[in-house]
Amino acid sequence: MVVKVYGPLYASPKRVMVCLIEKEIDFETVHVDLFTGENHTPEFLKLQPFGSLPVIQDGDYTLFESRAIIRYYAEKYKTQGTDLLGKTIEEQGLVQQWLEVEAHNFHPPVNNLVLQIMFSPKFGITRDEKVIKESEEKLAKVLDVYEDRLSKSKYLGGDFFSLADLSHLPFTDYLVGPCGKGYMIKERKHVSAWWDDISSRPSWKKCLEYGYPF
Amino acid sequence: MVVKVYGPLYASPKRVMVCLIEKEIDFETVHVDLFTGENHTPEFLKLQPFGSLPVIQDGDYTLFESRAIIRYYAEKYKTQGTDLLGKTIEEQGLVQQWLEVEAHNFHPPVNNLVLQIMFSPKFGITRDEKVIKESEEKLAKVLDVYEDRLSKSKYLGGDFFSLADLSHLPFTDYLVGPCGKGYMIKERKHVSAWWDDISSRPSWKKCLEYGYPF
Repeated sequence: MVVKVYGPLYASPKRVMVCLIEKEIDFETVHVDLFTGENHTPEFLKLQPFGSLPVIQDGDYTLFESRAIIRYYAEKYKTQGTDLLGKTIEEQGLVQQWLEVEAHNFHPPVNNLVLQIMFSPKFGITRDEKVIKESEEKLAKVLDVYEDRLSKSKYLGGDFFSLADLSHLPFTDYLVGPCGKGYMIKERKHVSAWWDDISSRPSWKKCLEYGYPF
Repeated sequence: MVVKVYGPLYASPKRVMVCLIEKEIDFETVHVDLFTGENHTPEFLKLQPFGSLPVIQDGDYTLFESRAIIRYYAEKYKTQGTDLLGKTIEEQGLVQQWLEVEAHNFHPPVNNLVLQIMFSPKFGITRDEKVIKESEEKLAKVLDVYEDRLSKSKYLGGDFFSLADLSHLPFTDYLVGPCGKGYMIKERKHVSAWWDDISSRPSWKKCLEYGYPF
């Protein structure tokens, strides 16, 4: 029985899919259209009570929250595919630290930019230029910390590609692509080299073949 | 050598401290005054480049982000003190899921309430009643999901106390205490019983002895 991943067109499910590809775990996808509210049907809410993506089903085991799902598979198949956790408990601690930084420092300003620049025109909402400006300023400060970190360490968690790096892929892809903010990456030498490295992994290229929501 | 925890008066460091107490790990605390900007000195930024609390030092190992630190100690001392992760990999997955729900669904509206109700008067800033109302509405929906979950399972991650429950302690304490929103917990039978249970643990009572920032 293969793993089912819900919502392959969207960014957060891609965080799970790129992890499954790195771990060499077979999966199939189930389309969920957020624009028609398929994430708020009683059936979907049984799987994910907040109406968010992604959700996975693995036999009779259901799990949601992308960063919980990637931790689960990285741990369950520790020795299969790419090791995404680190060898020692101290390496693993740093991977968890930078995975939390992605969630709490990097993601909020990037998500604001994505909502304002990519999504608001689709909903006929006027962009809030103040939110865009403030989010870009916040993100710039976060990327300055990344620049410093990546000048000392090839990847965020250490000298190996891990969940911490992988977790950045879907939203950084939106940032440099549809949001037109690639210069924020390019103007930082080590962040730029890191992005070129992680975004050229075959797992991510395969993930992109699933397409975008629009 | 005992673990050093920075910023014991504040809520996020208490997430770490209550975990260390549950795991029977000795620690000492280092005061950091956010109101005088001690978290932005060059010395502090060497430990935590974003200027946030908490940070721990354990010998020459430094780690930040409270939810990364609690995962690290829960894993490192798996068999010492309270097991906070779950026995099987599937139990552990659900603990990680609800820990992520705490971070992404529960925390943002509670944090808004804390900032608006507890902190804004200290900084002479006028409360934003619209933000308070919207945050309370968001939180109510999250707590409705918790009520359903806790009607089927004694704790969030399963039938055992885990990191997922523990992580709620510091900010729910602010919510029911200084924020005056205890009715949001009390009016939900299973959430109320869960809160009474987890907040009466000796580890949390010990944690509260460290005091509040004001």
